[in-house]
Amino acid sequence: VSAALTWWCNGRATADGSVGGRGLQYGDGVFRTLLKFGGVVVDEAAQLQKLQRDAARLGIVCDAAQRAALAAEMHEAAGAHRDAAVKLMLVRVDKGRGYPPGSDAADRHVAVYPLPRYPATHWSQGVTAAVSTLRVARQPVLAGIKHLNRLEQVMAYRAAPPEVEEVVLLDTGGAVVGGGRSNLFCVREGVLHTPELSNCGVRGLMRDTLQALAPALGIELRCRDLSLQDVEEADEVFMTNSLIGIWPIRMLGTRRWATPGPVTARLVQRLAHPWSG
Amino acid sequence: VSAALTWWCNGRATADGSVGGRGLQYGDGVFRTLLKFGGVVVDEAAQLQKLQRDAARLGIVCDAAQRAALAAEMHEAAGAHRDAAVKLMLVRVDKGRGYPPGSDAADRHVAVYPLPRYPATHWSQGVTAAVSTLRVARQPVLAGIKHLNRLEQVMAYRAAPPEVEEVVLLDTGGAVVGGGRSNLFCVREGVLHTPELSNCGVRGLMRDTLQALAPALGIELRCRDLSLQDVEEADEVFMTNSLIGIWPIRMLGTRRWATPGPVTARLVQRLAHPWSG
Repeated sequence: VSAALTWWCNGRATADGSVGGRGLQYGDGVFRTLLKFGGVVVDEAAQLQKLQRDAARLGIVCDAAQRAALAAEMHEAAGAHRDAAVKLMLVRVDKGRGYPPGSDAADRHVAVYPLPRYPATHWSQGVTAAVSTLRVARQPVLAGIKHLNRLEQVMAYRAAPPEVEEVVLLDTGGAVVGGGRSNLFCVREGVLHTPELSNCGVRGLMRDTLQALAPALGIELRCRDLSLQDVEEADEVFMTNSLIGIWPIRMLGTRRWATPGPVTARLVQRLAHPWSG
Repeated sequence: VSAALTWWCNGRATADGSVGGRGLQYGDGVFRTLLKFGGVVVDEAAQLQKLQRDAARLGIVCDAAQRAALAAEMHEAAGAHRDAAVKLMLVRVDKGRGYPPGSDAADRHVAVYPLPRYPATHWSQGVTAAVSTLRVARQPVLAGIKHLNRLEQVMAYRAAPPEVEEVVLLDTGGAVVGGGRSNLFCVREGVLHTPELSNCGVRGLMRDTLQALAPALGIELRCRDLSLQDVEEADEVFMTNSLIGIWPIRMLGTRRWATPGPVTARLVQRLAHPWSG
């Protein structure tokens, strides 16, 4: 394998390595998106731990020194902003052309974005969603990981009706995967259900949080295969991610729910998250 | 959607857009790898046309002006090198955080690498291959496209025995997809077979070339589902890509072939490619 002799972007020669590399060429890396709110990075340690575990699935090392460097760089990069969406990425270092990874080391990226501002009613009254026409492929080797191969999500949003706040993804076998940028939960007769995600999908941190919180509140949570019919027949449905916490879903296609349902409201109330009040 | 407020890489702030964007974050783009040999870029027009068609599958526009710019930049970037591997990439422009594509325009990337030097025996006596333990996911929406989501290939090579020249990929349903960086053909009773690639895999330019060349030589070519058993029972097996042309496969696991077989030899002889002599 050899490094690039030269790299041009839009007609201008660039310094090799500053543009390309295995992130751009292969998506060979992992990421997490963190909420910074009121000057505090929410769930920082847990997010770094999840980043490390996802990296390990790809054979990328993220040791204590790397995590400490990422944390320090995140705080410095986002230092000027009390509220922000902070994206951490680990991208396998480039050792030249070719798929075989020449290293288990990674470059650290920190991108700081303005925190998206959503209407308060997204939390109080819920959002609308549509089932995506795109079916997600089943790939157990990459299932659950927040990796940088996200073309399916791009294509799902590209095909989505513009008026909905979220798309619901099914896999090629018809099982519910989750929201396009969220995990999906539904409540039936007081029991919480969420897809197991052993074939595809992403295990967000908020999903872990609810897996711990629900039993502590005496709410049973079952991780299992869900069909679209299971979701449509549920008493309550909600989506989660680290930036938003929980949004009730009030409409999916033609199905409508009164929001927020009682279980959803309990979880929101007890969730240690800025948006949970 | 908003652009990044700041972007850090390995502890240093970088100019926004020069490092990240939708290529790194999502793999939202397409590429081709071209052979430049003896000062000539092989199959330039056909490669640009395939790039355009793949881009269109993702909703990325690559019009005549864009193709002309790419060609001009490729010739300038690779101008100093008589022999090179030239990678062209179109990456959807970044309009800020979030999966929905805000544009159908793309940034042009040209990366020039030293042409890999392989032993002459790779062409004359063939190469060894192993069946990958990784099974490729079935995703018809992305099937056939040379897109920038290539983690499956990375993981396949990562798991491959180091002594083989190529890995053979099966999909999650057990069908043969091809080589990790090549298309696969096999010959049985004089008839050529290659996977149809409607569920996954990449349609390389050399595959198109053989689809035109084989009938012209009176060799029937069937694009269809192939099992591993079909390949193992074949009289001849070979792999193709634009950099190498055709390499006979002389060993796959424990199966050995006498190389090159007569049909392979005929195709190599008539192929308009620098390596075909």
